[in-house]
Amino acid sequence: MSSIFTKIVKGEIPSYKVAEDERHLAFLDIMPIAKGHTLVIPKQETDLIFDLENEDFKELWGFAQEVGKKMKKAFPEQRIAVAVVGLEVPHAHIHLIPINKMEDMNFKNVRLKFSDEEYGEIQNLIKSS
Amino acid sequence: MSSIFTKIVKGEIPSYKVAEDERHLAFLDIMPIAKGHTLVIPKQETDLIFDLENEDFKELWGFAQEVGKKMKKAFPEQRIAVAVVGLEVPHAHIHLIPINKMEDMNFKNVRLKFSDEEYGEIQNLIKSS
Repeated sequence: MSSIFTKIVKGEIPSYKVAEDERHLAFLDIMPIAKGHTLVIPKQETDLIFDLENEDFKELWGFAQEVGKKMKKAFPEQRIAVAVVGLEVPHAHIHLIPINKMEDMNFKNVRLKFSDEEYGEIQNLIKSS
Repeated sequence: MSSIFTKIVKGEIPSYKVAEDERHLAFLDIMPIAKGHTLVIPKQETDLIFDLENEDFKELWGFAQEVGKKMKKAFPEQRIAVAVVGLEVPHAHIHLIPINKMEDMNFKNVRLKFSDEEYGEIQNLIKSS
Protein backbone atom coordinates (compact mmCIF):
# COMPACT_ATOMS: atom_id res chain seq x y z
CA MET A 1 0.00 0.00 0.00
CA SER A 2 1.23 3.50 -0.78
CA SER A 3 2.43 5.61 2.12
CA ILE A 4 0.46 8.73 2.94
CA PHE A 5 3.38 10.69 1.50
CA THR A 6 3.24 8.81 -1.80
CA LYS A 7 -0.45 9.77 -1.93
CA ILE A 8 0.59 13.38 -1.39
CA VAL A 9 3.18 13.07 -4.19
CA LYS A 10 0.50 11.67 -6.49
CA GLY A 11 -1.95 14.39 -5.50
CA GLU A 12 -4.40 11.86 -4.07
CA ILE A 13 -4.17 13.73 -0.77
CA PRO A 14 -3.99 17.54 -0.85
CA SER A 15 -0.98 19.32 0.65
CA TYR A 16 0.55 22.75 0.91
CA LYS A 17 3.58 22.31 -1.34
CA VAL A 18 6.41 24.77 -0.91
CA ALA A 19 9.02 23.33 -3.29
CA GLU A 20 9.29 20.50 -5.76
CA ASP A 21 11.63 19.04 -8.33
CA GLU A 22 11.56 15.84 -10.33
CA ARG A 23 12.58 13.62 -7.45
CA HIS A 24 11.79 15.58 -4.28
CA LEU A 25 8.89 17.35 -2.63
CA ALA A 26 8.58 19.79 0.29
CA PHE A 27 5.23 20.53 1.91
CA LEU A 28 3.88 21.89 5.17
CA ASP A 29 3.47 19.45 8.06
CA ILE A 30 -0.23 19.34 8.98
CA MET A 31 0.66 18.61 12.61
CA PRO A 32 3.31 21.31 12.98
CA ILE A 33 5.24 21.95 16.17
CA ALA A 34 6.09 25.42 14.83
CA LYS A 35 4.79 27.85 12.24
CA GLY A 36 6.45 26.92 8.95
CA HIS A 37 7.25 23.31 9.97
CA THR A 38 7.98 21.64 6.63
CA LEU A 39 8.61 18.07 5.49
CA VAL A 40 11.07 17.19 2.73
CA ILE A 41 10.75 13.80 1.07
CA PRO A 42 12.14 11.77 -1.82
CA LYS A 43 9.26 10.98 -4.15
CA GLN A 44 10.50 7.41 -4.29
CA GLU A 45 9.17 5.59 -1.24
CA THR A 46 11.91 4.35 1.13
CA ASP A 47 11.35 3.65 4.80
CA LEU A 48 14.73 4.42 6.36
CA ILE A 49 16.59 7.49 5.16
CA PHE A 50 20.01 5.86 5.65
CA ASP A 51 18.96 3.10 3.25
CA LEU A 52 18.87 5.54 0.33
CA GLU A 53 21.69 5.14 -2.17
CA ASN A 54 24.52 7.50 -1.25
CA GLU A 55 23.95 9.74 -4.30
CA ASP A 56 20.17 9.83 -3.71
CA PHE A 57 20.78 10.62 -0.05
CA LYS A 58 23.07 13.53 -0.92
CA GLU A 59 20.67 14.87 -3.56
CA LEU A 60 17.80 14.76 -1.07
CA TRP A 61 19.84 16.84 1.36
CA GLY A 62 20.89 19.19 -1.41
CA PHE A 63 17.21 19.81 -2.11
CA ALA A 64 16.51 20.19 1.62
CA GLN A 65 19.21 22.85 1.77
CA GLU A 66 17.41 24.91 -0.88
CA VAL A 67 14.17 24.62 1.08
CA GLY A 68 15.97 25.46 4.32
CA LYS A 69 17.40 28.62 2.76
CA LYS A 70 13.96 29.70 1.61
CA MET A 71 12.63 29.10 5.10
CA LYS A 72 15.48 31.12 6.62
CA LYS A 73 14.43 34.03 4.39
CA ALA A 74 10.77 33.52 5.32
CA PHE A 75 11.57 33.35 9.05
CA PRO A 76 14.71 35.47 9.36
CA GLU A 77 14.57 35.77 13.15
CA GLN A 78 14.67 32.03 13.66
CA ARG A 79 17.03 29.12 13.20
CA ILE A 80 15.88 26.39 10.86
CA ALA A 81 16.32 23.14 12.77
CA VAL A 82 16.59 19.79 11.03
CA ALA A 83 15.29 16.45 12.27
CA VAL A 84 14.85 12.94 10.96
CA VAL A 85 13.13 10.68 13.45
CA GLY A 86 11.80 7.92 11.27
CA LEU A 87 9.15 6.52 13.58
CA GLU A 88 5.96 8.07 12.24
CA VAL A 89 5.41 7.46 8.53
CA PRO A 90 7.39 4.67 6.78
CA HIS A 91 8.54 7.02 4.03
CA ALA A 92 11.81 8.80 4.75
CA HIS A 93 11.28 12.49 5.54
CA ILE A 94 13.25 15.42 6.84
CA HIS A 95 11.62 17.88 9.23
CA LEU A 96 12.65 21.53 8.79
CA ILE A 97 11.44 23.50 11.78
CA PRO A 98 11.82 27.23 12.52
CA ILE A 99 12.90 27.45 16.18
CA ASN A 100 13.93 30.07 18.70
CA LYS A 101 15.46 27.85 21.33
CA MET A 102 16.69 24.28 21.78
CA GLU A 103 13.48 23.25 23.54
CA ASP A 104 11.34 24.18 20.54
CA MET A 105 12.72 21.10 18.84
CA ASN A 106 10.59 18.63 20.78
CA PHE A 107 8.03 16.42 19.12
CA LYS A 108 6.14 16.20 22.39
CA ASN A 109 5.33 19.87 22.05
CA VAL A 110 1.71 20.78 21.38
CA ARG A 111 0.87 20.55 17.69
CA LEU A 112 -0.31 23.84 16.28
CA LYS A 113 -3.45 24.32 14.26
CA PHE A 114 -3.88 26.73 11.40
CA SER A 115 -6.82 27.55 9.16
CA ASP A 116 -6.64 26.79 5.42
CA GLU A 117 -6.09 30.48 4.86
CA GLU A 118 -3.24 30.64 7.36
CA TYR A 119 -1.63 27.55 5.84
CA GLY A 120 -1.92 29.19 2.43
CA GLU A 121 -0.18 32.30 3.75
CA ILE A 122 2.68 30.27 5.26
CA GLN A 123 2.97 28.29 2.03
CA ASN A 124 3.21 31.46 -0.05
CA LEU A 125 5.67 33.04 2.37
CA ILE A 126 8.10 30.12 1.95
CA LYS A 127 7.47 29.55 -1.76
CA SER A 128 8.07 33.17 -2.63
CA SER A 129 11.22 33.53 -0.51
CA MET B 1 38.78 32.30 18.40
CA SER B 2 38.52 28.66 17.38
CA SER B 3 35.30 26.84 18.21
CA ILE B 4 35.51 23.97 20.67
CA PHE B 5 34.97 21.68 17.67
CA THR B 6 37.92 23.16 15.80
CA LYS B 7 40.01 22.44 18.90
CA ILE B 8 38.76 18.85 18.76
CA VAL B 9 39.67 18.66 15.06
CA LYS B 10 43.16 19.95 15.86
CA GLY B 11 43.51 17.53 18.77
CA GLU B 12 43.83 20.37 21.27
CA ILE B 13 40.84 18.91 23.10
CA PRO B 14 40.55 15.11 23.39
CA SER B 15 37.54 13.33 21.91
CA TYR B 16 36.24 9.87 21.19
CA LYS B 17 36.50 9.84 17.39
CA VAL B 18 34.41 7.26 15.56
CA ALA B 19 35.04 8.23 11.93
CA GLU B 20 37.14 10.73 10.03
CA ASP B 21 38.07 11.70 6.52
CA GLU B 22 39.99 14.63 5.11
CA ARG B 23 37.16 17.11 5.55
CA HIS B 24 34.83 15.60 8.16
CA LEU B 25 34.94 14.24 11.68
CA ALA B 26 32.54 12.20 13.81
CA PHE B 27 32.99 11.87 17.56
CA LEU B 28 30.93 11.01 20.62
CA ASP B 29 28.91 13.80 22.23
CA ILE B 30 30.19 14.25 25.78
CA MET B 31 26.72 15.34 26.94
CA PRO B 32 24.77 12.53 25.26
CA ILE B 33 21.02 12.17 25.47
CA ALA B 34 21.44 8.51 24.44
CA LYS B 35 24.17 5.89 24.40
CA GLY B 36 26.03 6.30 21.13
CA HIS B 37 25.00 9.96 20.59
CA THR B 38 27.47 11.15 17.96
CA LEU B 39 28.31 14.51 16.40
CA VAL B 40 29.30 14.89 12.75
CA ILE B 41 31.07 18.09 11.70
CA PRO B 42 32.84 19.62 8.74
CA LYS B 43 36.41 20.34 9.79
CA GLN B 44 36.09 23.77 8.23
CA GLU B 45 34.39 26.03 10.77
CA THR B 46 31.00 27.37 9.64
CA ASP B 47 28.29 28.54 12.00
CA LEU B 48 25.08 27.74 10.12
CA ILE B 49 24.86 24.43 8.29
CA PHE B 50 22.67 25.88 5.53
CA ASP B 51 25.42 28.40 4.76
CA LEU B 52 27.75 25.66 3.55
CA GLU B 53 28.31 25.55 -0.20
CA ASN B 54 25.82 23.13 -1.77
CA GLU B 55 28.52 20.59 -2.66
CA ASP B 56 30.12 20.81 0.79
CA PHE B 57 26.68 20.43 2.37
CA LYS B 58 25.96 17.30 0.36
CA GLU B 59 29.40 15.81 1.08
CA LEU B 60 28.91 16.41 4.79
CA TRP B 61 25.60 14.50 4.66
CA GLY B 62 27.19 11.77 2.57
CA PHE B 63 29.77 11.32 5.34
CA ALA B 64 27.03 11.44 7.98
CA GLN B 65 25.25 8.64 6.15
CA GLU B 66 28.32 6.40 6.45
CA VAL B 67 28.49 7.14 10.17
CA GLY B 68 24.74 6.56 10.53
CA LYS B 69 25.06 3.16 8.88
CA LYS B 70 27.85 2.16 11.25
CA MET B 71 25.70 3.27 14.17
CA LYS B 72 22.76 1.27 12.86
CA LYS B 73 25.00 -1.81 12.90
CA ALA B 74 26.27 -0.96 16.37
CA PHE B 75 22.73 -0.40 17.70
CA PRO B 76 20.59 -2.67 15.51
CA GLU B 77 17.51 -2.51 17.73
CA GLN B 78 17.28 1.25 17.44
CA ARG B 79 16.54 3.92 14.88
CA ILE B 80 19.29 6.45 14.26
CA ALA B 81 17.68 9.85 14.53
CA VAL B 82 19.18 12.95 12.97
CA ALA B 83 19.08 16.50 14.31
CA VAL B 84 20.63 19.84 13.55
CA VAL B 85 19.67 22.50 16.05
CA GLY B 86 22.39 25.06 15.66
CA LEU B 87 22.02 26.88 18.93
CA GLU B 88 24.79 25.39 21.05
CA VAL B 89 28.22 25.61 19.43
CA PRO B 90 28.75 28.04 16.50
CA HIS B 91 30.25 25.30 14.33
CA ALA B 92 27.73 23.39 12.21
CA HIS B 93 27.15 19.88 13.53
CA ILE B 94 24.79 16.99 12.94
CA HIS B 95 23.53 14.96 15.89
CA LEU B 96 23.11 11.23 15.24
CA ILE B 97 21.16 9.69 18.10
CA PRO B 98 20.09 6.07 18.64
CA ILE B 99 16.46 6.22 19.75
CA ASN B 100 13.62 3.85 20.56
CA LYS B 101 10.72 6.28 20.43
CA MET B 102 9.91 9.77 19.24
CA GLU B 103 10.27 11.20 22.75
CA ASP B 104 13.87 10.06 23.02
CA MET B 105 14.73 12.82 20.57
CA ASN B 106 14.47 15.61 23.11
CA PHE B 107 17.38 17.81 24.05
CA LYS B 108 15.72 18.54 27.37
CA ASN B 109 16.22 14.90 28.31
CA VAL B 110 18.71 14.18 31.08
CA ARG B 111 22.24 14.03 29.76
CA LEU B 112 23.86 10.66 30.38
CA LYS B 113 27.24 10.15 31.97
CA PHE B 114 29.70 7.44 31.04
CA SER B 115 33.14 6.57 32.38
CA ASP B 116 36.20 6.87 30.11
CA GLU B 117 36.13 3.10 29.79
CA GLU B 118 32.46 3.06 28.77
CA TYR B 119 33.05 5.84 26.24
CA GLY B 120 35.95 3.82 24.84
CA GLU B 121 33.68 0.79 24.47
CA ILE B 122 30.99 2.79 22.67
CA GLN B 123 33.65 4.36 20.44
CA ASN B 124 35.04 0.95 19.50
CA LEU B 125 31.58 -0.49 18.96
CA ILE B 126 30.77 2.20 16.36
CA LYS B 127 34.25 2.37 14.81
CA SER B 128 34.39 -1.38 14.27
CA SER B 129 30.86 -1.66 12.82
